[in-house]
Amino acid sequence: MSSEPLPLRLPIRRADRARQVADVLRQQIHGEAFASALPSEQELATDFAVSRNTVRDALALLKDEGLIERAPKIGTHVARRKYDHGLDALLGLKETLRGHGEVRNEVRAATRITPPPAVARKLRLEPGQQAVYIERLRYLGDLPLSLDLTYLVPDIGDEVITRDLESNDVFALIEEISGGPLGSADLALEAITADGHSAATLQMPEGGALLLLERLTKLEDGRPVDLEYIRLRGDRITMRGSLTRPADRTDWRVI
Amino acid sequence: MSSEPLPLRLPIRRADRARQVADVLRQQIHGEAFASALPSEQELATDFAVSRNTVRDALALLKDEGLIERAPKIGTHVARRKYDHGLDALLGLKETLRGHGEVRNEVRAATRITPPPAVARKLRLEPGQQAVYIERLRYLGDLPLSLDLTYLVPDIGDEVITRDLESNDVFALIEEISGGPLGSADLALEAITADGHSAATLQMPEGGALLLLERLTKLEDGRPVDLEYIRLRGDRITMRGSLTRPADRTDWRVI
Repeated sequence: MSSEPLPLRLPIRRADRARQVADVLRQQIHGEAFASALPSEQELATDFAVSRNTVRDALALLKDEGLIERAPKIGTHVARRKYDHGLDALLGLKETLRGHGEVRNEVRAATRITPPPAVARKLRLEPGQQAVYIERLRYLGDLPLSLDLTYLVPDIGDEVITRDLESNDVFALIEEISGGPLGSADLALEAITADGHSAATLQMPEGGALLLLERLTKLEDGRPVDLEYIRLRGDRITMRGSLTRPADRTDWRVI
Repeated sequence: MSSEPLPLRLPIRRADRARQVADVLRQQIHGEAFASALPSEQELATDFAVSRNTVRDALALLKDEGLIERAPKIGTHVARRKYDHGLDALLGLKETLRGHGEVRNEVRAATRITPPPAVARKLRLEPGQQAVYIERLRYLGDLPLSLDLTYLVPDIGDEVITRDLESNDVFALIEEISGGPLGSADLALEAITADGHSAATLQMPEGGALLLLERLTKLEDGRPVDLEYIRLRGDRITMRGSLTRPADRTDWRVI
């Protein structure tokens, strides 16, 4: 413990205050606190107990993220709705977005390949054994949400690519074909910026933020069958979930 | 089901192949498959069964992300180690990075404030009731990893800011002060690009990718006590966890 308690008032700078305001506003927008128009600068300044200049700085941050639009006389409006993807249960995109609209997939590739050794190891394939590779651009209505690269074990994948990939989650097809439910998946989730080609494919600005999800999905018996690399548009998707505090924290290891 | 099975061979374009290679290599780098130097272009071309041009394109993508460095005659090296943060258990950064080095916090603000109404509601405060606000830049050794904005309920926060915030997780302090373990937390995780001010603070390039985590943490009895907005450097942190398939998927709702 420090022998000197901190001073109770360290100054908060204007740029820091703008970040504070932007973070709270961002979650209010996601939570649909505002129908479409945001409150006026003056109302926000009162709510947040900050100057109008700070409010303007905060709104500029959210505008740069593409979350809001601002125009003289028209005011500030929500530009883009974000959709929640779950961190609490293993679901496909179509299952996740049920009720929000139709998920359709543009199939960009669907073929047998000899996977790189690192992929073969994760799917427990023999060296040189083939896998099935599928690449899909996934839309909610007319909105591209994600670009998915999928490697499947051949006994399941060969059957998957004969099915309707345009309107089904791969998860649902695997369960149909394997005759049982999926078990669990290991996830790695990163934030990266979109390279030019990925950005063009996802119809977003180059350099925009992406959630990159690596997901290795297993059958109930633990056999890995599906390895995916998924680029989710950062301006369209929020991952949500809950965590509990482990009883023993001294020896906790992430996977 | 579609009546027309897909052709088994849709062509995969070079830029798409580069993305395929980059995604697998990225996870190999995170998994420390390579000591420091990556295999040669020719070895990678053989492993991935692609041309050397495709390998070069893939390495260019990873270089743009800051993950690798390339130089003539010296070859390709891992530029930056990433650290895993857990999606399976509620842990503070210091608990998470135990064994990787010393986590220290630069305290940028620590003060009582009147929180905006949206924050007060989440923390179940009365209108006008004060909260404690703490802003910390968190380092692993000399490496800035995250910028954390924290709102605490006053009965706990008033005591927290008298403690050593430079070297403790706020979670540990809350548990010491409240006399019991934390219960659970609700998370929202997004990818955004870093604005100029956040980037300068985190010593990263403007426009680089950030993981933005909103986390509302509750005591064991369910009372929310700690609302945080955490910017994690995308080039330094990977979130990892596992998910299981819910038995009933027809009525699944994310939180």
